Amino acid sequence: MAKELVFGHQNPDTDAICAAISYAYLQKQLGYEAEAVALGEPNEETKYVLDHFNQEAPRVITRASAEVEKVMLVDHNEPQQSVSDIADVQVTHVVDHHRINNFNTSDPIFYRAEPLGCCSTVIWKLYHENQVAIPAKIAGLMLSSIISDTLLFKSPTTTQTDRDAVKDLAEIANVDYEAYGLDMLKAGTDLSSKSEQELIDMDAKTFELSGKKVRVAQVNTVDLDSVLARQANFETVINAENSAEDYDLFVLLITNILNSDSEAIVIGSETGLAAFEKAFAKKIVNNRVLLPGVVSRKKQIVPQLTEAY
Amino acid sequence: MAKELVFGHQNPDTDAICAAISYAYLQKQLGYEAEAVALGEPNEETKYVLDHFNQEAPRVITRASAEVEKVMLVDHNEPQQSVSDIADVQVTHVVDHHRINNFNTSDPIFYRAEPLGCCSTVIWKLYHENQVAIPAKIAGLMLSSIISDTLLFKSPTTTQTDRDAVKDLAEIANVDYEAYGLDMLKAGTDLSSKSEQELIDMDAKTFELSGKKVRVAQVNTVDLDSVLARQANFETVINAENSAEDYDLFVLLITNILNSDSEAIVIGSETGLAAFEKAFAKKIVNNRVLLPGVVSRKKQIVPQLTEAY
Repeated sequence: MAKELVFGHQNPDTDAICAAISYAYLQKQLGYEAEAVALGEPNEETKYVLDHFNQEAPRVITRASAEVEKVMLVDHNEPQQSVSDIADVQVTHVVDHHRINNFNTSDPIFYRAEPLGCCSTVIWKLYHENQVAIPAKIAGLMLSSIISDTLLFKSPTTTQTDRDAVKDLAEIANVDYEAYGLDMLKAGTDLSSKSEQELIDMDAKTFELSGKKVRVAQVNTVDLDSVLARQANFETVINAENSAEDYDLFVLLITNILNSDSEAIVIGSETGLAAFEKAFAKKIVNNRVLLPGVVSRKKQIVPQLTEAY
Repeated sequence: MAKELVFGHQNPDTDAICAAISYAYLQKQLGYEAEAVALGEPNEETKYVLDHFNQEAPRVITRASAEVEKVMLVDHNEPQQSVSDIADVQVTHVVDHHRINNFNTSDPIFYRAEPLGCCSTVIWKLYHENQVAIPAKIAGLMLSSIISDTLLFKSPTTTQTDRDAVKDLAEIANVDYEAYGLDMLKAGTDLSSKSEQELIDMDAKTFELSGKKVRVAQVNTVDLDSVLARQANFETVINAENSAEDYDLFVLLITNILNSDSEAIVIGSETGLAAFEKAFAKKIVNNRVLLPGVVSRKKQIVPQLTEAY
């Protein structure tokens, strides 16, 4: 059986990297030759996770078709969030927890998506369904993903299954998940060493809404004011990005992980800004909007924008 | 919890009808209010199955949005194969075994597809994963679906999982699946009472290939010659259909279930016919092509046409 690459989305977050590692391990136990790779370097939070569980970062690729014919996707399905030459390879498996969009195949495939808080929660179910034992290190990576995606269960995307998975995995990994989880989240919020360009690229996804490209970036912080103090510089790099990439709208969601509120910097075309204001019934003032209780791009931003566009 | 409708594709075959019944029953056990309906009347084979297991045919609907907000799809995902107002309802669950195409959502959903011979085989797995007991009648419906879709394991779409499922289900339903299966398949091949228009509608699906509409219909028979004797009449109704529906290509696959060969009647635009000839490396002579060993639209027709288009 020829090797297949397993990877998560561009600008990988902890789930994109760890779900690839966990799913590749599972598929190897099931007889596939699978290698976990990544579409970018791990961010600060993910580095903390990999260090903690003594796991090497996956090799970074920018193209897949030169080395394999087939790939497996985790934590995404939309082509514009995937490897640049996704059209030149065959996708054989998808495990995901996002909406399905622009994802077309010519053959039947394995597709497993559930509306859970984290892709790694779906993979945790797959381990159990296939009766494959979860190694302690993999358990640690999966629980880190779930804590990351659900902001330690504070995100409205959190389900009882995510909580059950973390409890099960914490026992296997022998981790106090609440203390570890907060340390891990904090490790991801040291933004002072990053440029504004790096921050808007770090965890950003492009969506095609009614034919327009919309970019939604998110940074987590425990100190909202010091991030907002850099607003003028954010505006400069976002304006440049919008021109270069033809984004109709750019939303930078700055999320305070301690109280679960976000402040958004929103820049785009007149129609894009109007769609945003309609989606959230809020006025954008000085390119900014306060979004209390909004922490989830997937559940609290993208569906609302999709509807408005 | 508001009621959701569960249904298979237009021109329902045995799997489309029985998978809806089986999945609705499973979802009810899992706490959903679910009603199985159908997008058309059962065909002769399906009638035989429903009679045999003493199951009422599901209510036929043509629209969903007047009665529910949410639906669950089985055995299909492509919107043009679904209920006419699919765009006006929210799809919450899909269980399928086909390619994924033109299927877009704004929210995360349950999506379970596997490249197995039958959607009911996926549903059989779901019963086991969720530890829900399969009633004898439901077991009978599911095994009938699998026999129908795999032509009693003769189709190349057949997997070991399909065989395992039929054996498990035959025990529960207390059925000699080989004898029953052949009777069931034969019940579906009495084509003499049907008009040519009925025959090309009975099990037909529309595919969008590079922006063109391609229709692939299939009839099963134990007497190929008597079906081919009606070629002139088939040509008349297919030509009318192509004009009315703007099909670029119409393929009527006439499959001999005893020896697993098909003869196809192929009518379409010049480019459509060229794509077909390229896809199968065969000349169409007198609107006809012999396709030895071809029994599966999904595996032996659609991917080849997709590639050629």
